[in-house]
Amino acid sequence: MKYLVVVVRSLSLTGGGCVSVDPDLLIEIHNTNNLSGGPSGDTSVSKNEPARYKVQSCKQLKDKYNIKDDGIYYLTTASGTEYQTFCDMTTAGGGWTLVASVHENNMFGKCTAGDRWTSQQGNNINYPGGDGTWENTATFGTAEGATSDDFKNPGYYDIMAEDMSVWHVPNRAQLQTWRITSILRYHTEAKFLAQYGGNLHGLFKRYTVRYGVGNCNDKGPSIPVDDMGTKDTTKMFYGPTPRGEFEPGFITFRAINTERAALAICSGVKPTGCNNEHHQLGLSVFLPPVT
Amino acid sequence: MKYLVVVVRSLSLTGGGCVSVDPDLLIEIHNTNNLSGGPSGDTSVSKNEPARYKVQSCKQLKDKYNIKDDGIYYLTTASGTEYQTFCDMTTAGGGWTLVASVHENNMFGKCTAGDRWTSQQGNNINYPGGDGTWENTATFGTAEGATSDDFKNPGYYDIMAEDMSVWHVPNRAQLQTWRITSILRYHTEAKFLAQYGGNLHGLFKRYTVRYGVGNCNDKGPSIPVDDMGTKDTTKMFYGPTPRGEFEPGFITFRAINTERAALAICSGVKPTGCNNEHHQLGLSVFLPPVT
Amino acid sequence: MKYLVVVVRSLSLTGGGCVSVDPDLLIEIHNTNNLSGGPSGDTSVSKNEPARYKVQSCKQLKDKYNIKDDGIYYLTTASGTEYQTFCDMTTAGGGWTLVASVHENNMFGKCTAGDRWTSQQGNNINYPGGDGTWENTATFGTAEGATSDDFKNPGYYDIMAEDMSVWHVPNRAQLQTWRITSILRYHTEAKFLAQYGGNLHGLFKRYTVRYGVGNCNDKGPSIPVDDMGTKDTTKMFYGPTPRGEFEPGFITFRAINTERAALAICSGVKPTGCNNEHHQLGLSVFLPPVT
Repeated sequence: MKYLVVVVRSLSLTGGGCVSVDPDLLIEIHNTNNLSGGPSGDTSVSKNEPARYKVQSCKQLKDKYNIKDDGIYYLTTASGTEYQTFCDMTTAGGGWTLVASVHENNMFGKCTAGDRWTSQQGNNINYPGGDGTWENTATFGTAEGATSDDFKNPGYYDIMAEDMSVWHVPNRAQLQTWRITSILRYHTEAKFLAQYGGNLHGLFKRYTVRYGVGNCNDKGPSIPVDDMGTKDTTKMFYGPTPRGEFEPGFITFRAINTERAALAICSGVKPTGCNNEHHQLGLSVFLPPVT
Repeated sequence: MKYLVVVVRSLSLTGGGCVSVDPDLLIEIHNTNNLSGGPSGDTSVSKNEPARYKVQSCKQLKDKYNIKDDGIYYLTTASGTEYQTFCDMTTAGGGWTLVASVHENNMFGKCTAGDRWTSQQGNNINYPGGDGTWENTATFGTAEGATSDDFKNPGYYDIMAEDMSVWHVPNRAQLQTWRITSILRYHTEAKFLAQYGGNLHGLFKRYTVRYGVGNCNDKGPSIPVDDMGTKDTTKMFYGPTPRGEFEPGFITFRAINTERAALAICSGVKPTGCNNEHHQLGLSVFLPPVT
Repeated sequence: MKYLVVVVRSLSLTGGGCVSVDPDLLIEIHNTNNLSGGPSGDTSVSKNEPARYKVQSCKQLKDKYNIKDDGIYYLTTASGTEYQTFCDMTTAGGGWTLVASVHENNMFGKCTAGDRWTSQQGNNINYPGGDGTWENTATFGTAEGATSDDFKNPGYYDIMAEDMSVWHVPNRAQLQTWRITSILRYHTEAKFLAQYGGNLHGLFKRYTVRYGVGNCNDKGPSIPVDDMGTKDTTKMFYGPTPRGEFEPGFITFRAINTERAALAICSGVKPTGCNNEHHQLGLSVFLPPVT
């Protein structure tokens, strides 16, 4: 399976431990395994009705029904829930399923109320794990709204995936323009998700995104990405502040900074210091408690 | 009709009048009446597409299409809105439709912003009825996310039901594990909803969940539940604090405490005192105003 | 295309620059153009499954499939996203698509957290454009919940429309009663949307709803409505405060008041003064920053 996250526009950081993500982050996953119990045979599609294939991923749509066009399709979870999402049928052989986007309109917002990836209740010392969105099965938003709002669909926990792709797309870009307007697109090829529960849901159940869960040495895996262009491209996204405290060309999960805040995804880099909040390309974090 | 609410994990209470619900509360409803204008004849289902039956409830799915498996199905409201939800086809003859869950991640949260059942604006003296969710037709969440987030679907107001079932399921449990991981499951058999508008929407329009709507004697109906195990099971959920101010084996609606807060559902008990906020198994309340 | 917004109940205003909308505002759009690439031929509809026509608007449903009944139907965006909404097949020839409703439960709320049309983060000086909902492709809510909650669907940005209709419907009215319970229903006939990007999404990208974007003279277009009854009907909605600072019989977009707050829609009137926040029938605004 292929797993896609989309990041929109460019990186923006604020001081104080909480990273504001101006770009949207879209997550796409790629499956390479066939799922047991999948469908077979033809599907009957009326000319006037959208096709509904009972498959769990874009990879299956491609492999079983020979679908080759990027676009919105219906998928169905193992439990039978239907949902619509975007399939990238082009990158690295195609079959990438959009499962999430991380969005931040307010560059000055620090874990502000309404943030679905951290907490809808704002930052709170009594609520160190926030809403637990990285680890649970809540879903929200739509594929077409993924650059205008936070987005998470059932593929996030339902698809058994191996690799992950990240697109950085400008805020409010409409779906048809994502590919051409994207600033960066890159993906892993290490099939790393297989050893972390098969998807981000499994990975973050193991690496909890929670304030105070550990220190700077307890970060989760850093996975190399293979199509990042020159590594200097990544560096361009950062101002002079980080001063080389990271190595570009990676996706890092659950980094922890000196203030003990947990940062869900450091997309594009592997932190080598402890001020991780300065080199996120798109992510969700929990702040140290406001006192 | 059968009406199901799911409560997750166990009860947790905080002082001060507002009850934090750690468990999720899933509401399931059961219809026994045939609805007028329902469908007849066969439905054409492609092997590769999920079945879409134009019925309003799981009870009709069972009675008209002989569907016997628990799972996610499509239902259609009287107005024509399709939605997906979970059907319990097993308990007490089956045909229970999941219509709601009440979820609270933050044990320390007291009517915090983002709570769909009370208020997304937090507790506010100028907003005594909160968002009015118990009485309106707003919907949110998904069946698969029901133990990770608040959930309310169109069945809440669309299905004409008689009885109600409550499951207490651990937080973040995935749908496939709800039945085996549930701590408590119980339901009414008194067909009480018929006299209160046919569903919780009708019941709460009559018994408004609003701060200051009445005093401790103005509570709504208490309905006995028939499969609660020993009543001591319920008592186990409470600490020493409540000191016997309730009788187990009931579901009570719109209880009012000494601070004049209204508590939507006291699941599992009939309050006999006025400190009702101490014996909710899963519910939504409005606080006395913060001054 | 026809574009419908529904306003619920009656106007209510509070001082201080932020308008609380008690009524819900439903937006309906009307297309008169055929879209290229639309479907042709029959659609196969099983008796037991809701019809799914691959069309982008209610106007196309009416023109291509001769559908004449008001109700909930499936539409499909240019990108392939399916969604359900209400079609008004009666007013002025029919073919109006419900695309949005503006809802405010809390009469005392001023840009309170949880407001999808302004900001889920509350009013904030560092966040002058709020969530940007008028200009982006985020969607939320459901047609059936449109008088109980904020609502915006993909038709808001997907349909190329010419005119706009507004219904003022009582809060919490159920869909079946909208028409008979509505206090006011009116629409434009000037085909004005064609010159503003074809829909409200296009119009508000041009006329940004943002604090400080301009002054009272920089307001967007005022479009006459043709079926408003006597203009005195509109005046009835306002108390003595506005003292004639508007002319009834118009829909005005992006008005700006003396405090430099931007008001998305002044429905029913054309402001002639600068205290615009006193004569909104249903709208969303950004406050001057709270200091």
